[in-house]
Amino acid sequence: MYKMKTKKFILAESQMPTAWYNVAADMPNKPQPYLDPRTRRPVTKDDLSMLLAEELAAQELSTERYIEIPEEVQAVYRIWRPAPLVRAEALERALDTPARIYFKNESVSPVGSHKPNSAVPQAYYNARQGIRRLTTETGAGQWGSALAFAGRHFGLDVEVYMVRVSYDQKPYRRLMMQTWGASCYASPTDRTASGRAALAAEPDCRGSLGLAISEAVEAALQDPAGTRYCLGSVLNHVLLHQTVIGEEAIRQMEMADDEPDVVIGCIGGGSNFGGIAFPFLRRNLCEGKRTRLVAVEPASCPKLTRGRFAYDYGDVAGYTPLVPMYTLGHEFQPAAIHAGGLRYHGAGALISRLLRDGLIEAQAVPQSETMRAGLLFAQCEGIIPAPESTHAIAAAIREAQAARIEGRPRTILFNLSGTGVIDLYAYEQYLAGRLTDSEPTDAEIARTVEGLGLLH
Amino acid sequence: MYKMKTKKFILAESQMPTAWYNVAADMPNKPQPYLDPRTRRPVTKDDLSMLLAEELAAQELSTERYIEIPEEVQAVYRIWRPAPLVRAEALERALDTPARIYFKNESVSPVGSHKPNSAVPQAYYNARQGIRRLTTETGAGQWGSALAFAGRHFGLDVEVYMVRVSYDQKPYRRLMMQTWGASCYASPTDRTASGRAALAAEPDCRGSLGLAISEAVEAALQDPAGTRYCLGSVLNHVLLHQTVIGEEAIRQMEMADDEPDVVIGCIGGGSNFGGIAFPFLRRNLCEGKRTRLVAVEPASCPKLTRGRFAYDYGDVAGYTPLVPMYTLGHEFQPAAIHAGGLRYHGAGALISRLLRDGLIEAQAVPQSETMRAGLLFAQCEGIIPAPESTHAIAAAIREAQAARIEGRPRTILFNLSGTGVIDLYAYEQYLAGRLTDSEPTDAEIARTVEGLGLLH
Repeated sequence: MYKMKTKKFILAESQMPTAWYNVAADMPNKPQPYLDPRTRRPVTKDDLSMLLAEELAAQELSTERYIEIPEEVQAVYRIWRPAPLVRAEALERALDTPARIYFKNESVSPVGSHKPNSAVPQAYYNARQGIRRLTTETGAGQWGSALAFAGRHFGLDVEVYMVRVSYDQKPYRRLMMQTWGASCYASPTDRTASGRAALAAEPDCRGSLGLAISEAVEAALQDPAGTRYCLGSVLNHVLLHQTVIGEEAIRQMEMADDEPDVVIGCIGGGSNFGGIAFPFLRRNLCEGKRTRLVAVEPASCPKLTRGRFAYDYGDVAGYTPLVPMYTLGHEFQPAAIHAGGLRYHGAGALISRLLRDGLIEAQAVPQSETMRAGLLFAQCEGIIPAPESTHAIAAAIREAQAARIEGRPRTILFNLSGTGVIDLYAYEQYLAGRLTDSEPTDAEIARTVEGLGLLH
Repeated sequence: MYKMKTKKFILAESQMPTAWYNVAADMPNKPQPYLDPRTRRPVTKDDLSMLLAEELAAQELSTERYIEIPEEVQAVYRIWRPAPLVRAEALERALDTPARIYFKNESVSPVGSHKPNSAVPQAYYNARQGIRRLTTETGAGQWGSALAFAGRHFGLDVEVYMVRVSYDQKPYRRLMMQTWGASCYASPTDRTASGRAALAAEPDCRGSLGLAISEAVEAALQDPAGTRYCLGSVLNHVLLHQTVIGEEAIRQMEMADDEPDVVIGCIGGGSNFGGIAFPFLRRNLCEGKRTRLVAVEPASCPKLTRGRFAYDYGDVAGYTPLVPMYTLGHEFQPAAIHAGGLRYHGAGALISRLLRDGLIEAQAVPQSETMRAGLLFAQCEGIIPAPESTHAIAAAIREAQAARIEGRPRTILFNLSGTGVIDLYAYEQYLAGRLTDSEPTDAEIARTVEGLGLLH
């Protein structure tokens, strides 16, 4: 019934990467600089250090090719890393495809996603600097859980502003943060001026990620001596930390004696896609390989396929620097899809520049196709994927079906960024036939991108 | 901050065990036979085959030392096996103990527990026999999820009778089963005579595990040609399948160049404890080793420490054979602790005989101690344990504290049987100070064991 081939490719701890890869070193065109929103001048390391740990501010602007992973960080990575690379043979059979499908399983972390790959070094560098408290925001709760977990390891207090609608709907994520000792507040709160303003305007305000960012930033700035802010995606240093995924995957594809023709990841701000894709991109840029790299976004939040390349804010309130990015406008309100982690109006500067230069590809998929793909994957491979990760699976299935139709085998690698066991309501909605698809109209996008200064 | 030692000990797929270990082969005293409740005569393989797949009925009565794991089962095991063995150094530091603490991490399966170790072979043997449908019961939902997952792999319909109170309180477990294509019914149902009788007596009946077993058994017997029943613990063949845990752990302790002085598992029916302990017991019985083997039960359901060694039924209604076991009586109602998987009145025949003969030990721990232990473990090692598994952690911590007080190092191995991310309400209750401890009085136990025929 089953062929006895090796299913998982697992590195020894001694084979774990000891450095992160900084794609900025090898990009033919570097991203335009972040701009101070008031002065319109490029932000400096000192500017960023008001908000972020100094080492993270330095990494954000670095063009060094490799940055060493501190031993203290590697020690925590070892709780779940190296993560398996798995051959999805049952899925291949179900699709009757000549393609070979592999996935990198980042769902095995204690948090259930790739997020701690960056949360752990962020907590570490802050602790090393003598910071005592971290603030952050979280939407669905994946990033907040990861920072709670990481903060605990390095003795830091962690304060999470969680969008109220998620706080009420997703008690398990909140409980996970509290179990690791973090404080979790439903945003908007009365702890910050931006929160109080929102509550004054609308006492029943359900919150938004943009507002939660504003609260977390404000809370950090109130205590410059002891508190810093952390972000779970978008920024260069976050994508840098996530490259452990791709570095491991390169070694594991060698173990499998195979070579991916296409590498696929879903995209919100870019952390899991960049994490798996950038090390493969290095081989394209430096070793003449031609691996396709595909970022997959929800059709309801199509920044890469239908957005503008422009300077825009990272948050709704306009507290962050201006970032050069593909964006739908910082006031764009994506539909309430289950893949909460992909409901972000822009992509990070690195991803955006690479797309602009044709070095990576983008695809948009509707929600119903992603959940159908996720269900098939769960039934074949046994692992229930996060709604975010189902976007990568849907794109991998499209590739595998193309291989069947064209009669040409190929090797597909996708990133399984997280588990769906805490997001099972998405599957319930799908199984009950209650999921809907939606796409913004051109007029809607035109309205939210209006006035953005376009880039080239 | 952290020492750079190997944290996880991971076998290659080629080092996975290819046979299960049957402890019945080496026991100095075999368990007394199961008895037919009507005739009081030992049940035969043919009797058992009415309810179970023939191969499973044969395994139930087998005294062969090793039973080969079919290649089709190994192929599915490879989705998550071999499972890591981990050195809990952060926990050691937190306890300031000279003891070395290791845990076998069975939480890494797609279901989040050790249960698929038996669900997969049960589904396989049934499918090979031409059975098309499986019925089972589930309390908290771990076993039902595992059988749903396993049934999907071998193309079987799976029908799960889930205790209504859990069905209503734990929608994630139900959704997990449905995601894998199983049917899940809140028991009591109107699909069986026992369910209808319960509903007639009490329309709002919240159900019980004993009643759900009765419904699942009845549903299987209604279709002798195409349906069989499956059980997730207690029975010999279930414990047999779980020995992959201990077989792997023996190889991994060798990798760690260490030797456990004590092996610890929590106990409901005995599947995860037997799974890790029996292979170590073989070394005690056949190779002169003296590893202590400790089964840990909740103080609120103390069958091993305060029960009687007697013939008793496996279910409330008395549908099952009489099993020779340590029992609190099949009508015993344990308190509503969070460790739902340990709320069972009896232990399996193998475990009970071994305890009777002094070859294993038993300990009872109160709920608050287990949750305190689970929280410390989560904060040190990053993994949030299932409420059941926290019992093993609590006993491991007791051992580590004894090592500190006595100033004598020792090596402790415990089984982390599952993850708690779907049971986070237990942690919420604990953090909110709302957990209570309870123990049955001697008079309560005397009442439920009254009339049982004691054994020796």
